[in-house]
Amino acid sequence: MSLSNRIVVEITEMPKLRNPTLVCGLPGSGFVGKLAVDHLIEELKGVPFANIYSSSFPPQVLIQSDGTADLMKNTLYYCKTESSDLVLLSGDAQPVSPESEYEMAEEITKLCEKLGVKTIYTLAAYITGAFTKTQKVYGASTSPQIVKEFPKYGVYPMNSGSITGMNGLIIGVAKRKNITGICLLGETSGYVVDATASKSVLETLATILDLNLDLVGISKKAQDTEQLIKTIKEQMGGRQSPESLAIPQHDKKLGYIS
Amino acid sequence: MSLSNRIVVEITEMPKLRNPTLVCGLPGSGFVGKLAVDHLIEELKGVPFANIYSSSFPPQVLIQSDGTADLMKNTLYYCKTESSDLVLLSGDAQPVSPESEYEMAEEITKLCEKLGVKTIYTLAAYITGAFTKTQKVYGASTSPQIVKEFPKYGVYPMNSGSITGMNGLIIGVAKRKNITGICLLGETSGYVVDATASKSVLETLATILDLNLDLVGISKKAQDTEQLIKTIKEQMGGRQSPESLAIPQHDKKLGYIS
Amino acid sequence: MSLSNRIVVEITEMPKLRNPTLVCGLPGSGFVGKLAVDHLIEELKGVPFANIYSSSFPPQVLIQSDGTADLMKNTLYYCKTESSDLVLLSGDAQPVSPESEYEMAEEITKLCEKLGVKTIYTLAAYITGAFTKTQKVYGASTSPQIVKEFPKYGVYPMNSGSITGMNGLIIGVAKRKNITGICLLGETSGYVVDATASKSVLETLATILDLNLDLVGISKKAQDTEQLIKTIKEQMGGRQSPESLAIPQHDKKLGYIS
Amino acid sequence: MSLSNRIVVEITEMPKLRNPTLVCGLPGSGFVGKLAVDHLIEELKGVPFANIYSSSFPPQVLIQSDGTADLMKNTLYYCKTESSDLVLLSGDAQPVSPESEYEMAEEITKLCEKLGVKTIYTLAAYITGAFTKTQKVYGASTSPQIVKEFPKYGVYPMNSGSITGMNGLIIGVAKRKNITGICLLGETSGYVVDATASKSVLETLATILDLNLDLVGISKKAQDTEQLIKTIKEQMGGRQSPESLAIPQHDKKLGYIS
Repeated sequence: MSLSNRIVVEITEMPKLRNPTLVCGLPGSGFVGKLAVDHLIEELKGVPFANIYSSSFPPQVLIQSDGTADLMKNTLYYCKTESSDLVLLSGDAQPVSPESEYEMAEEITKLCEKLGVKTIYTLAAYITGAFTKTQKVYGASTSPQIVKEFPKYGVYPMNSGSITGMNGLIIGVAKRKNITGICLLGETSGYVVDATASKSVLETLATILDLNLDLVGISKKAQDTEQLIKTIKEQMGGRQSPESLAIPQHDKKLGYIS
Repeated sequence: MSLSNRIVVEITEMPKLRNPTLVCGLPGSGFVGKLAVDHLIEELKGVPFANIYSSSFPPQVLIQSDGTADLMKNTLYYCKTESSDLVLLSGDAQPVSPESEYEMAEEITKLCEKLGVKTIYTLAAYITGAFTKTQKVYGASTSPQIVKEFPKYGVYPMNSGSITGMNGLIIGVAKRKNITGICLLGETSGYVVDATASKSVLETLATILDLNLDLVGISKKAQDTEQLIKTIKEQMGGRQSPESLAIPQHDKKLGYIS
Repeated sequence: MSLSNRIVVEITEMPKLRNPTLVCGLPGSGFVGKLAVDHLIEELKGVPFANIYSSSFPPQVLIQSDGTADLMKNTLYYCKTESSDLVLLSGDAQPVSPESEYEMAEEITKLCEKLGVKTIYTLAAYITGAFTKTQKVYGASTSPQIVKEFPKYGVYPMNSGSITGMNGLIIGVAKRKNITGICLLGETSGYVVDATASKSVLETLATILDLNLDLVGISKKAQDTEQLIKTIKEQMGGRQSPESLAIPQHDKKLGYIS
Repeated sequence: MSLSNRIVVEITEMPKLRNPTLVCGLPGSGFVGKLAVDHLIEELKGVPFANIYSSSFPPQVLIQSDGTADLMKNTLYYCKTESSDLVLLSGDAQPVSPESEYEMAEEITKLCEKLGVKTIYTLAAYITGAFTKTQKVYGASTSPQIVKEFPKYGVYPMNSGSITGMNGLIIGVAKRKNITGICLLGETSGYVVDATASKSVLETLATILDLNLDLVGISKKAQDTEQLIKTIKEQMGGRQSPESLAIPQHDKKLGYIS
């Protein structure tokens, strides 16, 4: 294997799954998707079976808490639940150039074909630019049928705009391989790492997939988020937007993509 | 088909056409070209026959009004009019890098060779930076013979400068395949989505191609543009340039490339 | 031929030359090199024999004074003088990305191998950032022997720094093909299109190559440059640098690379 | 050989070495690594045996003190010491794009496999943003075993963050080829070319590798650095950060990457 081949997929074990569904949570605005999928991996005891390396990830190694260094990568996990088999995708980064984002979406959906995946969920952030009281979950899909079912699950259908980056491309490329793509977007200000939005998205996903999911861990993180937002609002006084504030970082390890 | 191959052309039906002419209207300054070609597609009942996908389009999916998501693409339509057969090119985006713009121009002109296209028109914006009273149409061509005929149709020949992006490259690459290239540029301030400029370009094109074209739809949009410019001018008072104004967007769905 | 192959060389006629020398003058700071080589082409009646197109040139067509449009390109000319055979390289642009600059240098030196070129001169600008009274010509070479001969021709050897872009890469890549590379750099402020610097470089080149060269044309342009600099200096009053002045463009057609 | 192949390795002589260790010192923040490795090359009389050229290095030639010009390159040296055989990597530049950094790391580690290298050290800067009194050396490794041994050599293990550029990628890619990677980072403000940090890193490396190393040369340069920092601190008065100062360049030839 050579990283001159831009994308390298290393599979340690190809799991046998029944009609699995892929759920993607890559790092992005507010880390909404990543926090959600990392919670799924933990709660559902996801088993890692493949790493994806790419020369289009940021050129650096990440230092782990034990002092060891490793290239940036995305990792695939599988888990078998009562209701359905799941494949979970988490990772350190998204590719850094437009063309390599398309390539990565192609690679991930190709792997989905091999695994028999029929439906892909990408979990993302719906940025409002303001701290709202609601915690809506928005949705878009490559299938008009799915869009019609959104209200049944309390999902607000998007009807304009775009979904940028891997969360959009994965479902767009999936459509061309006859895999249904759905993006669930948690409403977030865009100013903080937002576990509250992650929790809302997870609740919606659990309902749709009929998952029996313990949400204690993500609920605790959501309380931290709410406390942080409360603090910021107090600093803001009557102002409408926190843009001019020095916002404390909620999670130093994750960092924050504004 | 795989999007790792940068550009993918998906043809649903290869039409049989007599000496067809291609008219391109991709999104660009003021959406002059795109509005014009979209009007042609509607009025002449263009039949879509090919989609062009590319990993050099912006990495995102667009959400349609029905809530469904699709990759960005360019689409080719054909229509048979009394005077001539036309191929019409419209799309969501232009490629994001210089090299992929050349590749896309190569791909489009290759398709033109297969369709027997002998002449290509690209519809573009001639940016003045100011609101003018005139609605001139400028022109450039790869053929000196065509340039000489411009005044006959009220087209002002350009004699310096450059035409950037796909509107320039498509005719430049076409020349190297012995296809005549013509660019018609509608005079526009560059500050608003300008249906008035689109209308002028369409009138000129209809005259050149001897098209019987209903312009009611674009005329209505042109009235909206004129109303918008009037409002901006009032806000400007005596100032020469609207650059410091917060300009309201004419068409939120299209957005605006400044 | 397809521009998907990044660089395309179209040769209309491969000239037979005796130990030819290549002189390159691509657009760059102050247009020092381009003005000089364009003068050589005119005075020595250079015969064009090859065009180089590239998808790494800026994505646009240039409009000629007769209203016709063409892709950006570099062009090679040959001429046989009493003292030696010359190949002259002029062009509309340099490639836009680092990697494509290396590729272009590779392509040009490959062509040199086929033509039997043993020595390459690139003509460039030595930017001082100030209007100086002197018109020095600096030099660098891949051959220490040549560097030793510089003072004989009034050339000041550089002894640190770098030569960026095609002027540097062409001689660097040439060295690896056992072709001697020499860069002559005309001292210039970097603020204006500088025909005076071009003239100095041409005088030096003519001496080295023992060329019988009429310099009337470039001398006239040099007078324009001197007049322009005089005007700017008057506007500057006692200030040291013209950076804060609105500097009139000397040659609108060429534009100006600051 | 053609530079269209992005990376070209030219080997003049493939040395036979016993379990060699590679030490890399490419130009980066404070030139900490480059100064250190250049000192090793000088003191241990390293023999150059391979040059690496790449179209992803900055597109320019460097002018040597004798007036000659050459493409940017990385160079590999070998030396046989009493304790162990070493391969030393120094160079003019790092690649300019993320993808070509991965490719270069791949190429260098491939060469390591051929040479039988089992361990790679990259020497880097640990930027603090302030002038500190200490001269700590930090470390990270692909091997948890090595991390545990760090305190024995006075190396502070990193436990979060990332190592960007070639210093990180080389050890990350090496890990995937079963070569142990270690990065030693000298504490530096990030504001000056810092030979003091280089000296600290060299002392640590000499201890780990049991090298008998004369440090007189680098110690002299370290004194210059200390003098420079003292001058800056005086200019700063009571201020905390030197960011707003015009900082004199310590080493004009090396330049400075801020």
